Amino acid sequence: MAVLDRDIYFLALFTCHESGFQKVNNSAEETQGSVLLASVHFLSGCSSKKAKSHLYSFLPILKWLPRYPVKEYLLGDIISGISTGVMQLPQGLAYALLAAVPPVFGLYSSFYPVFLYTFFGTSKHISIGTFAVISMMVGGVAVRQVPDEIISVGYNSTNATDSFEYYHARDTKRVQVAVTLAFLSGIIQLCLGFLRFGFVAIYLTEPLVRGFTTAAAVHVFTSQLKYLLGIKTNRYSGPLSVVYSIAAVLSKITTTNIAALIVGLTCIVLLFIGKEINLRFKKKLPVPIPMEIIVVIIGTGVSAGMNLSESYRVDVVGNIPQGLRAPAVPEIQLIPAIFVDAIAIAIVGFSMAVSMAKIFALKHGYTIDGNQELIALGICNSVGSFFQSFPITCSMSRSLVQESTGGKTQIAGALSSIMVLLVIVAIGYLFEPLPQTVLAAIVMVNLKGMFKQFGDVAHFWRTSKIELAIWMVAFVASLFLGLDYGLLTAVAFAMITVIYRTQRPQYRTLGQIPGTDIYCDVEEYEEVKEYPGIKIFQANASLYFANSESYTSALKKKTGVDPCAILAARRKAQKRHAREIKAANELRKKTNDMEASVKHEIANDELPVNGKFASADASVQDVSPDEHEQFVEPKTNIHSLILDFTPVNFVDSVGAKTLKSIIKEYKEVGVCVCIASCSGPVMTELTRLNFFDNTVTRELLFHSIHDAVLACQVKDRSASQTDFNL
Amino acid sequence: MAVLDRDIYFLALFTCHESGFQKVNNSAEETQGSVLLASVHFLSGCSSKKAKSHLYSFLPILKWLPRYPVKEYLLGDIISGISTGVMQLPQGLAYALLAAVPPVFGLYSSFYPVFLYTFFGTSKHISIGTFAVISMMVGGVAVRQVPDEIISVGYNSTNATDSFEYYHARDTKRVQVAVTLAFLSGIIQLCLGFLRFGFVAIYLTEPLVRGFTTAAAVHVFTSQLKYLLGIKTNRYSGPLSVVYSIAAVLSKITTTNIAALIVGLTCIVLLFIGKEINLRFKKKLPVPIPMEIIVVIIGTGVSAGMNLSESYRVDVVGNIPQGLRAPAVPEIQLIPAIFVDAIAIAIVGFSMAVSMAKIFALKHGYTIDGNQELIALGICNSVGSFFQSFPITCSMSRSLVQESTGGKTQIAGALSSIMVLLVIVAIGYLFEPLPQTVLAAIVMVNLKGMFKQFGDVAHFWRTSKIELAIWMVAFVASLFLGLDYGLLTAVAFAMITVIYRTQRPQYRTLGQIPGTDIYCDVEEYEEVKEYPGIKIFQANASLYFANSESYTSALKKKTGVDPCAILAARRKAQKRHAREIKAANELRKKTNDMEASVKHEIANDELPVNGKFASADASVQDVSPDEHEQFVEPKTNIHSLILDFTPVNFVDSVGAKTLKSIIKEYKEVGVCVCIASCSGPVMTELTRLNFFDNTVTRELLFHSIHDAVLACQVKDRSASQTDFNL
Repeated sequence: MAVLDRDIYFLALFTCHESGFQKVNNSAEETQGSVLLASVHFLSGCSSKKAKSHLYSFLPILKWLPRYPVKEYLLGDIISGISTGVMQLPQGLAYALLAAVPPVFGLYSSFYPVFLYTFFGTSKHISIGTFAVISMMVGGVAVRQVPDEIISVGYNSTNATDSFEYYHARDTKRVQVAVTLAFLSGIIQLCLGFLRFGFVAIYLTEPLVRGFTTAAAVHVFTSQLKYLLGIKTNRYSGPLSVVYSIAAVLSKITTTNIAALIVGLTCIVLLFIGKEINLRFKKKLPVPIPMEIIVVIIGTGVSAGMNLSESYRVDVVGNIPQGLRAPAVPEIQLIPAIFVDAIAIAIVGFSMAVSMAKIFALKHGYTIDGNQELIALGICNSVGSFFQSFPITCSMSRSLVQESTGGKTQIAGALSSIMVLLVIVAIGYLFEPLPQTVLAAIVMVNLKGMFKQFGDVAHFWRTSKIELAIWMVAFVASLFLGLDYGLLTAVAFAMITVIYRTQRPQYRTLGQIPGTDIYCDVEEYEEVKEYPGIKIFQANASLYFANSESYTSALKKKTGVDPCAILAARRKAQKRHAREIKAANELRKKTNDMEASVKHEIANDELPVNGKFASADASVQDVSPDEHEQFVEPKTNIHSLILDFTPVNFVDSVGAKTLKSIIKEYKEVGVCVCIASCSGPVMTELTRLNFFDNTVTRELLFHSIHDAVLACQVKDRSASQTDFNL
Repeated sequence: MAVLDRDIYFLALFTCHESGFQKVNNSAEETQGSVLLASVHFLSGCSSKKAKSHLYSFLPILKWLPRYPVKEYLLGDIISGISTGVMQLPQGLAYALLAAVPPVFGLYSSFYPVFLYTFFGTSKHISIGTFAVISMMVGGVAVRQVPDEIISVGYNSTNATDSFEYYHARDTKRVQVAVTLAFLSGIIQLCLGFLRFGFVAIYLTEPLVRGFTTAAAVHVFTSQLKYLLGIKTNRYSGPLSVVYSIAAVLSKITTTNIAALIVGLTCIVLLFIGKEINLRFKKKLPVPIPMEIIVVIIGTGVSAGMNLSESYRVDVVGNIPQGLRAPAVPEIQLIPAIFVDAIAIAIVGFSMAVSMAKIFALKHGYTIDGNQELIALGICNSVGSFFQSFPITCSMSRSLVQESTGGKTQIAGALSSIMVLLVIVAIGYLFEPLPQTVLAAIVMVNLKGMFKQFGDVAHFWRTSKIELAIWMVAFVASLFLGLDYGLLTAVAFAMITVIYRTQRPQYRTLGQIPGTDIYCDVEEYEEVKEYPGIKIFQANASLYFANSESYTSALKKKTGVDPCAILAARRKAQKRHAREIKAANELRKKTNDMEASVKHEIANDELPVNGKFASADASVQDVSPDEHEQFVEPKTNIHSLILDFTPVNFVDSVGAKTLKSIIKEYKEVGVCVCIASCSGPVMTELTRLNFFDNTVTRELLFHSIHDAVLACQVKDRSASQTDFNL
């Protein structure tokens, strides 16, 4: 049934990030439902149109139900509702195993929230209900809060009654945890929805979600192994739970229940065949073969007929109480312990639902409201929790069936929930002999699509190493740290990659394509040429605290001019020079004295003097004022440096100071620094950061690189003319 | 002595981020030290020059000591060494209080590391030793690991011997913690240095460090209150310790020791006067007045003379053991508990030292090596820890004195450490009567510069709200969560601000400045004009997962063209149209039948026919093929959309997909999307992400906005001509 899961994932996640959560601007032209509006009108006090629009946005059913074209839509909705309903049933039972609660709670979760969504949801095609990843997350928390061991200490017995009591007590507590999780994550979703915080889902970028769901699939698979093999082991949660689970199963592999394994493997084969048929004969079949319910029915029949439970000790679903339970308040005191998990579940659930909803909305040409979806899911979860349902979201496989079998509106979902209700109140007990191995088989086969995501590694390897890193981190962290901490780690890592990209920019020097005003990387293109004496430097990132140091050093390296080194060399030279002048002066003094005395002696004969003191004179002559100038002047072969600010989107105070000190340092060694293509917002920021002063003026800014180049050339020419004139 | 602390901070931090950690490319020309090199040569096997260069870089003393100009430098170094030494002494004693260890360990910390730095450090002017912020961090950890209460449970006694034993046991354990912290942070610094990871300090951006040090000053101040007042309270650490400390002091305010308070306040006044004199007569004084040591000496004298300890129960420094201690191995088993703190101390210490070193290097025209500084500090801390010194770094106030009193090289630092050594081995016991309140006064007065940083709030308010936010978060988090978690929180927050800047870009539509190829924001400049039918859209950020949704929605909003809405409207119109056609066709059929029969009836009279069926015909005529076209065609007033990619520095897969779907969606409604000024690296990324295919070709890319505009105009003109020709 989850035939296209993989592609859908791809599409889903892609679309999620693509279309934005634009609010549906409900045109307030409609005139229906005005009776109901009267009260809202009275309460809110805002204009009738606005109130109407708000009410429609909060209760979308008011908008679409009165205009429901019964003749056109009803048949499709009924067929789709039944097809989806027969999937809700086995999936509800199976995913309850994942959530570590008795199967009947899976049925509750497949009824209440699904029914509620009809009223509040804006998507016409997604199938709300139990979902593997969310159920697994719930199971992880339930097992962490109520481990197998702790309670068993109180019930260290082998007899059946005690054992039953033990399991009953454990399951009751786990149900409380799962239900409270649903309540809390629902409340979180509601709050996010009312605060219009739907955008939080953007942090779950595609590689992250794909890595995360792949890890979840591994978690789900390992947790189902024991049911498939009919082995009794504890269930683990928290870091390294996957490893512990596998180790536990392997250590007890000899106790495998052959009957359970045979039944399970048969089911897996049947389900794969069903999937294959549905895929191959997609166009010929009016509705896909509901292989899951068929397997469940056959499994139940065989189990009941052969009495698998007693004869072969195959674990069966067991007690399914008939009828609904009275509403109960979730255990509020559990909240602090599960708060972080609830946030993770709320966000993952929302992100799954909205991505799927986007696909169908795009396909069928309507819009969904991301924030209203959050509110709808929040109501489904929080209200549902009062009726013992655990956290739910949209299931990909079911949604696909609901849409492909002709579902037109939320009516289909409502019908599927009513089917589940009928089972709960009427024939639920019939499923009591159903072997757990059959449910494990259903869960495992549904993982096929997610396991295919391992192919992502090759895909991301080709396209982007950074996204591969996000995938790997999400996968590895979720696999080994558990789904909750894994998700947090992955989100943190995805953010760090953004920092990394801005922090390690590519530095380039640009040159002109001759005859144009186009400037390109000199290393990349052969034909570009650099103007003598002018260097154009570009970094493809904004300039701020984390990269301003590397900007400076790259600038010095790329341009080959380091003002510090030049100044140090100059200082050294000056010192040596000063020493030499001093020495020379002393010498000159001495020489003069001697000369004077010599002159006195041989006043009329000049030749020997010149010959005698030639060497001393030479050193003295070295120290002419002209020579002094030449000595100190730095030996830079460039006169202008142009910083291309095209890629700079923001500047902070550290960046501004860096820039200022670059300009001043280079000025000291006679290199003029210009800034080209500085955008308006960056200009504003620089001004506010007191960047401009007497030495750093706005005259250093140029609209484009070419303008800056021309200005530098003019300045250099006039400077050299001045030199010449001097 | 810390006269210019505030400005120095500013400069320090600014410079830290400005100059980069360029490695000093030690020119391997020098020929000294070749004897020592022979062994290295033998061991390393690399070329002699390289080995020499490596050795010089690791042991800079080999390079500068043989060339030490004794006549020129020695006098300055001696004066500077003595001036710094007389500051090391009181600060060592005082900061030991902060670090929650007995005063003598402050003296050890002012000797070993300072001496070691002479050999390994590259900065000639910074004064290594105890520093308030680092000492405070050490004290926090020591108190957390060895709280006042826990040990006192074992020693619930009032008699003096037990009390002494209790304090002794507690202090011994705290010393172990402090020493192990020094060892661990030293090792961390060493590792970072050898891995050339000096750049980690860049995450400590200026507003962050200033907010952090301001919070540290508050911590230091509150921790010293009890010493100033002579009150006995427990010392707190961890979250809210500031609040607890103040509450504890206030609750015991009635037990204030008036004698201690008077002595303390007198010292504060003296120190402030000293600071003022040093500031006013800076140029006239040969060396600054060493007011701290004067205060210590007077305080000791008064205390000894008046027997303050016994007569007025003033707390004094107490036992200062003479001589040095034998080296001991730090407590390795403490490491896991203090690992995070050690990282924080290592990074803060390094960042302080290197920022100060940069200032002096810049001022005196030499370069320092950031990574070698890390190694030097690492050796000082880790080796020092074997001799019971706690973590140290460069002190701002002392460094300033060392430089201003004429220190030329690391010799000055070595001399100051030898002064401390002399005190330790010879006259340390003389300071035993020194009241603790004097030390508290010294610590508090040294905080003046840091408290001035509160002025930052106004400064950052004017220049940058984001940096103000970083400052506030660093301050508040460090104040209430403690320095370690506060620092982590602040670093995380500073990173998030970067994400925020890329995630909430400014979106603008551009127009041409008439007669040029310059395109500017239409809302900002009045004179720019937009070409009819062409919209130019720009977002000043890269396009990636966290902002691609808002990019799409901003595009739709700014351009006023929403393909989804248009398509939905079109679909609606088509449907209505189809219904109308159907109805019309039926009518036409009926009409035709009727007409035929009528024609049969009145074959020769045409007038009544036309009159009779005019209304029916009108509706039929509506549905001409031409009308059909007009009906479905969307009513967009633009034909081309140009996305300016100038500010886009990178694109990820989500961004590429968003872009692709934007192009396709707009194409469906007849709007051509072009991309202008896409940089080389982004092009490469797009290609790798399989962005280009049959529909999205490279022909959509233009070098500049102007090129794109011209192309769009040409295309539109030819399109309308084709329309016309048809």
